[in-house]
Amino acid sequence: MSDDVIDRLVARIQLNRHADPTQSYVAKLTARGRAKMAQKLGEEAVETVIAAMTGDRREIVSESADLLFHLCMVLVDAGLTMDDVRAELARREGMSGLDEKAGRKG
Amino acid sequence: MSDDVIDRLVARIQLNRHADPTQSYVAKLTARGRAKMAQKLGEEAVETVIAAMTGDRREIVSESADLLFHLCMVLVDAGLTMDDVRAELARREGMSGLDEKAGRKG
Amino acid sequence: MSDDVIDRLVARIQLNRHADPTQSYVAKLTARGRAKMAQKLGEEAVETVIAAMTGDRREIVSESADLLFHLCMVLVDAGLTMDDVRAELARREGMSGLDEKAGRKG
Amino acid sequence: MSDDVIDRLVARIQLNRHADPTQSYVAKLTARGRAKMAQKLGEEAVETVIAAMTGDRREIVSESADLLFHLCMVLVDAGLTMDDVRAELARREGMSGLDEKAGRKG
Repeated sequence: MSDDVIDRLVARIQLNRHADPTQSYVAKLTARGRAKMAQKLGEEAVETVIAAMTGDRREIVSESADLLFHLCMVLVDAGLTMDDVRAELARREGMSGLDEKAGRKG
Repeated sequence: MSDDVIDRLVARIQLNRHADPTQSYVAKLTARGRAKMAQKLGEEAVETVIAAMTGDRREIVSESADLLFHLCMVLVDAGLTMDDVRAELARREGMSGLDEKAGRKG
Repeated sequence: MSDDVIDRLVARIQLNRHADPTQSYVAKLTARGRAKMAQKLGEEAVETVIAAMTGDRREIVSESADLLFHLCMVLVDAGLTMDDVRAELARREGMSGLDEKAGRKG
Repeated sequence: MSDDVIDRLVARIQLNRHADPTQSYVAKLTARGRAKMAQKLGEEAVETVIAAMTGDRREIVSESADLLFHLCMVLVDAGLTMDDVRAELARREGMSGLDEKAGRKG
């Protein structure tokens, strides 16, 4: 089992996608399809934005966890994992030296 | 140096927050304040949603990296790191057994 | 009574803000405060984005109505009406001649 | 010419969609396609959410105008106008009596 809880989350999503939708939120959301996953991702992002604005640290952590969870749902649905995102971050890191600026588009 | 590129990203944000804003995107965005960071987080989430809907895997990875980057900006600005989010995910993992459902609010 | 349903919606929101929250969605959302209104506005925008991407015209209309409703909630909560937004659109119209470009920031 | 600036905006978008993209923001955004319009709609909604949270009334009005503009872009691109959204709001108004609750899904 991975040391990183994000990778364990991805693995659990991969495992539970085709479980019983009445028992598993992952299976239920998977059954509703990509558009519903994307919607949930967007909604959790809105909640993270609100938490960032109110400044409640507990809320920021909680909403960030919801956001990461639904991001992982979308990644897995597209046949990706967090390692693909890490590879992209590492690529930008290599390009940027002390800052990430060179690796970003704007 | 951490093995995880996300943690290295958080460390770089912590380091560069007070660098020269003309040299560092991190410093520039930090200087613009929390509302601008939250706005960028929301905008990158919108782009991730669009990428999820169009289904372009390269775009999904690229926008997810942008989203994670700006999420880390908000976390650091609130005195948090990705470890705080991992702790929340681990707490939910402990509560949920095979699925994450019990650990979620809705 | 105004000829425009959007203005009637604004008037109804103004009237029902302090109604019984168990009878009125407007009163209930008002009682939950600005952050919750802003969150709903953001979530309905996400749903409108998804509808725009899937291309279902009925969904676009329905989600646009939800979005306009929650935009009016925010406007009223800030002591504004749709006429303030119309005045801004008219100001830009005056500046732009055939297109709106000159009136926009970017 | 319509008395309502929102309808004039819709008419101008319909007129300028196929204008010279170097002269018209409407034509330029139209040429970039539905996904880019949806993205702009989402981004302006994020800015409206931020303005609602900071409470700056001038910003709320300005961002609401941007949001309405890009909502009209999406509507026109889907062969719709604001009258379709008004018809939906009127339908809900008829269902709800004093409040809009009955006309909403949740």
